[in-house]
Amino acid sequence: MVTNKPVPDIVVGRLPIYLRALRRFQEEACITISSADLARRLAIGSAQIRKDLSHFGEFGRQGRGYDVSRLTTELSRILKVDREWGMALVGAGDLGSAISQYAGFRARGFRVKCVFDKDPAKIGRRFADLEVLGMEHLLAQVAALSIRVAIVAVPADEAQAVVNDLVAAGIRAILNYAPISIAVPPGVSIQHIDPVVHLQRMTYYLE
Amino acid sequence: MVTNKPVPDIVVGRLPIYLRALRRFQEEACITISSADLARRLAIGSAQIRKDLSHFGEFGRQGRGYDVSRLTTELSRILKVDREWGMALVGAGDLGSAISQYAGFRARGFRVKCVFDKDPAKIGRRFADLEVLGMEHLLAQVAALSIRVAIVAVPADEAQAVVNDLVAAGIRAILNYAPISIAVPPGVSIQHIDPVVHLQRMTYYLE
Repeated sequence: MVTNKPVPDIVVGRLPIYLRALRRFQEEACITISSADLARRLAIGSAQIRKDLSHFGEFGRQGRGYDVSRLTTELSRILKVDREWGMALVGAGDLGSAISQYAGFRARGFRVKCVFDKDPAKIGRRFADLEVLGMEHLLAQVAALSIRVAIVAVPADEAQAVVNDLVAAGIRAILNYAPISIAVPPGVSIQHIDPVVHLQRMTYYLE
Repeated sequence: MVTNKPVPDIVVGRLPIYLRALRRFQEEACITISSADLARRLAIGSAQIRKDLSHFGEFGRQGRGYDVSRLTTELSRILKVDREWGMALVGAGDLGSAISQYAGFRARGFRVKCVFDKDPAKIGRRFADLEVLGMEHLLAQVAALSIRVAIVAVPADEAQAVVNDLVAAGIRAILNYAPISIAVPPGVSIQHIDPVVHLQRMTYYLE
């Protein structure tokens, strides 16, 4: 039964993992899978998977499993990735360059549509078919392209100011590669990519 | 009071975030901070922070806060990042190239020491001062350099086989950039970096 209660963010966070696995089942030409099939592949309990999906409706039939194609379509719709999201990228250094070239974005519905930097030496450079623009163009470009999603790839001590500028320009979802915690106002989402945090979490366990 | 009970992994996972914030307090020449100072910067509750740190001993004094330098040193020791960790990188494509150049690793105690690929067209290329080696050299190199940590930057459908090879070679901590869930045996840690998963978690909330 679907209620109007907000779905816990921890559940929302697992949906992209399910979607990614479903896309692989599709590539393998699987028609139907059980929650146990999904559980085995993800090392997540099958009861957890069934409970997570039940927040959004009835996707499977008792004893018959999930229709891979239908569940993929439904999860794409729920996550709003049944469309292409344009993104603004701030930071045109080595990291920004690598991000702008990352093929995984476009293949899964995200595309860098404009690139900004405050460094005059980087402004005017080309990132594939995009020209690096100065920060003074941020507001107008984000409005003109109706962009809601941005990637931050600037040094840690510049990141909060850049995020403030992005929020002021109307950005509502930010993927932050700067190795620093950033504050955002209510109504704005931020997620962090810091590979060193993941490495340090693992070295704890090494002898 | 410190007991011998294992610390929950969710707590271990927050320590690198605390350490990162402490390093910034150090850069700002702060001598002492309260758990409230740390909480404000991280958007984590101060009670949570005190509880997490209490797993490892008494770092602060009632009403006097934490000594930034001492807590930094202690957390570095606990996370075993008071030393440099050599890493093996598998995958010498665009992503592997960007990873090998990422300055954030070396600045925080991690260094790519060898690079491998199975593609004859990539073997022999140079990544800065490293030559890309064929996979047949993995076992001997990892042993010779006493490497325990590896990064996987290969396509999704090759990642499980690469991880199996890494584990067989003695690797015990794996940072996986391939967009796929990977199984590892007990005693091996794996963490995943998939920016699209983070983006999709946020687009859910966009109107």
